Amino acid sequence: MPDEPVTAIDPADWVCPLPLRETKRIVMGHGGGGILSEELIENLFLPAFDSGRGTGGPSRDSAVLTVPAGRIAVSTDSYVVQPLFFPGGDIGDLAVNGTINDLAMSGATPIGLTAGFILEEGLELELLGRIAQSMGKAADHAGVGIVTGDTKVVGKGSADQLFVNTAGIGVIPEGVDVGPERVRPGDDVIVSGNVGEHGVAIMSVRAGIDFGTVVTSDSAPLHGLVAAMLAADASGRIHALRDPTRGGLVAAVIEIARSAGVGVALDEAAIPVPESVASACGFLGLDPLQVANEGKLVAFVDPSATEAVLAAMRGHPEGAGAVVIGRAVSEHPGMAVGRTAFGTTRVIERELGEQLPRIC
Amino acid sequence: MPDEPVTAIDPADWVCPLPLRETKRIVMGHGGGGILSEELIENLFLPAFDSGRGTGGPSRDSAVLTVPAGRIAVSTDSYVVQPLFFPGGDIGDLAVNGTINDLAMSGATPIGLTAGFILEEGLELELLGRIAQSMGKAADHAGVGIVTGDTKVVGKGSADQLFVNTAGIGVIPEGVDVGPERVRPGDDVIVSGNVGEHGVAIMSVRAGIDFGTVVTSDSAPLHGLVAAMLAADASGRIHALRDPTRGGLVAAVIEIARSAGVGVALDEAAIPVPESVASACGFLGLDPLQVANEGKLVAFVDPSATEAVLAAMRGHPEGAGAVVIGRAVSEHPGMAVGRTAFGTTRVIERELGEQLPRIC
Repeated sequence: MPDEPVTAIDPADWVCPLPLRETKRIVMGHGGGGILSEELIENLFLPAFDSGRGTGGPSRDSAVLTVPAGRIAVSTDSYVVQPLFFPGGDIGDLAVNGTINDLAMSGATPIGLTAGFILEEGLELELLGRIAQSMGKAADHAGVGIVTGDTKVVGKGSADQLFVNTAGIGVIPEGVDVGPERVRPGDDVIVSGNVGEHGVAIMSVRAGIDFGTVVTSDSAPLHGLVAAMLAADASGRIHALRDPTRGGLVAAVIEIARSAGVGVALDEAAIPVPESVASACGFLGLDPLQVANEGKLVAFVDPSATEAVLAAMRGHPEGAGAVVIGRAVSEHPGMAVGRTAFGTTRVIERELGEQLPRIC
Repeated sequence: MPDEPVTAIDPADWVCPLPLRETKRIVMGHGGGGILSEELIENLFLPAFDSGRGTGGPSRDSAVLTVPAGRIAVSTDSYVVQPLFFPGGDIGDLAVNGTINDLAMSGATPIGLTAGFILEEGLELELLGRIAQSMGKAADHAGVGIVTGDTKVVGKGSADQLFVNTAGIGVIPEGVDVGPERVRPGDDVIVSGNVGEHGVAIMSVRAGIDFGTVVTSDSAPLHGLVAAMLAADASGRIHALRDPTRGGLVAAVIEIARSAGVGVALDEAAIPVPESVASACGFLGLDPLQVANEGKLVAFVDPSATEAVLAAMRGHPEGAGAVVIGRAVSEHPGMAVGRTAFGTTRVIERELGEQLPRIC
């Protein structure tokens, strides 16, 4: 090391040798960790993610959060939905709400989200800006900050426009214990409202089909609804929560049935499927019970708490349509059986793969 | 709801109607949230991520971690490196080590990672399995569990083989306060070892050029090294830490200089650039100081602590080559100036974009 201070160019004489960059599209250098990356963060992401919350927006490499002693929930999801924009939402608010909901299903109060972007070279900055704004708005609406992020760029043809990953951190309040292993035969199965809307909204845009009524995605954060439910039952009688996303209501119910070692008996006539969803699904050959939702939850609740929990749900905007749709039973563990509108019963099977790819 | 129990098919009579699936490649259904998704998780990811740790592997939608009251660090990175396998590592261990290192740079002890996969339809399961195994092994080596994950599949041509996102959670020990805002003029700048190896390793495979000596990636977790450094200085004289990944040593130093409002004077002759890296960079027209590293750190340390911190670093495998390479100065804030081997000085500028795309 030199002992004398280095006296190079006087900064006052130093002029940025780079032209102002007026590109309207993502170039490879936006993912390079250099000046272009910094410009993207400072001019596009930070303003979008700091929408008036005054948090200063996300930090660069890692963020610091303060937590009480105890349990935290951690979750991650990547979002690859196509189209990027659809009735009722876009990939941005989906990426915020979806990860918030995964946290909420463990009873956690979300306290921060990360955002990782994989961008295709040539993506319009205006489009990226709209999606970032949408994420910021959704995070703001949910009261959860986007605390740190990352951006990578891949060459044209190596990705499809953009993919977003979000991870989330939540604090599980003391005394809250929600998980499929707590489900018991006799538990009521409650759904928070209409099913099938998100999947049909995506499909209606993708197929370019007009079903008469526009079905909009139900994309919404559910941690407020969960908090209301937990407040209505202080004695741990909400046994399990699940958001029926990919695979829909059926996948959510069967996953819990398998984890808990119980069967589930569904009253199919009680399941709220809007007429518009039913007719679109009929046209497309989809089962509305296996179509993704992005703003609904399924709860397994001790019957002694059902009345209080239902009342709390119905008092919350995201749970206004809450109804009991079935019951956990000791028969046929790991399976769901439905009583149809005709009074007959059938085994309800999950899809092998998916009805509709890139739904979220 | 029916009051009587549903008596459908006796499960004992029920036979899985699906054939055993012998596919060797990823199909769209692996991302659908149905039976194929479950098979992928149970047969490929869980065994890879539960490599003898007995943690039961990652949980499905969210994981629960127990933390002390205080500060946690949260970080995320997506990994899009090509080729997926390179001398010294692969996208899997990079995804584990890279996010661990982001946490370590805030002084945090990593306690859990998430893993999000975006897979291209047609990807060989064997290749995915190798990468998952590598992630599990790296996580095991670092003593940090992969606690939850997510898998999406996009159609052939909509992604380039696979992309991995990891997010990480770490606990910042009480009393640890590391951040660029703490850097002061006079701080020594220490690098933990040779620079430029990761980028040259990638480039040598990608360009198919034989430089005589095989340069291997330095991919490694640095939280152990950081813990040793922090233990050597109980009085908060390690002011800032940064892992010089994209943009290399220069980007790391300039980012800290800009955040801290100090200048940095580097003694270029003191910077450890292996001969093999220097000659490869010369051939390729790259600046070794701007080539990515994946197992090195830069530390800004109060000079009164330099001796103890250096000794601690040199006693750790990942810091054996630690040296002082420069100093924070009050002149030219936000800029790095190098004293060359010829005794002249020059302003060191960051790249506009990147020298080498998809390096991590």
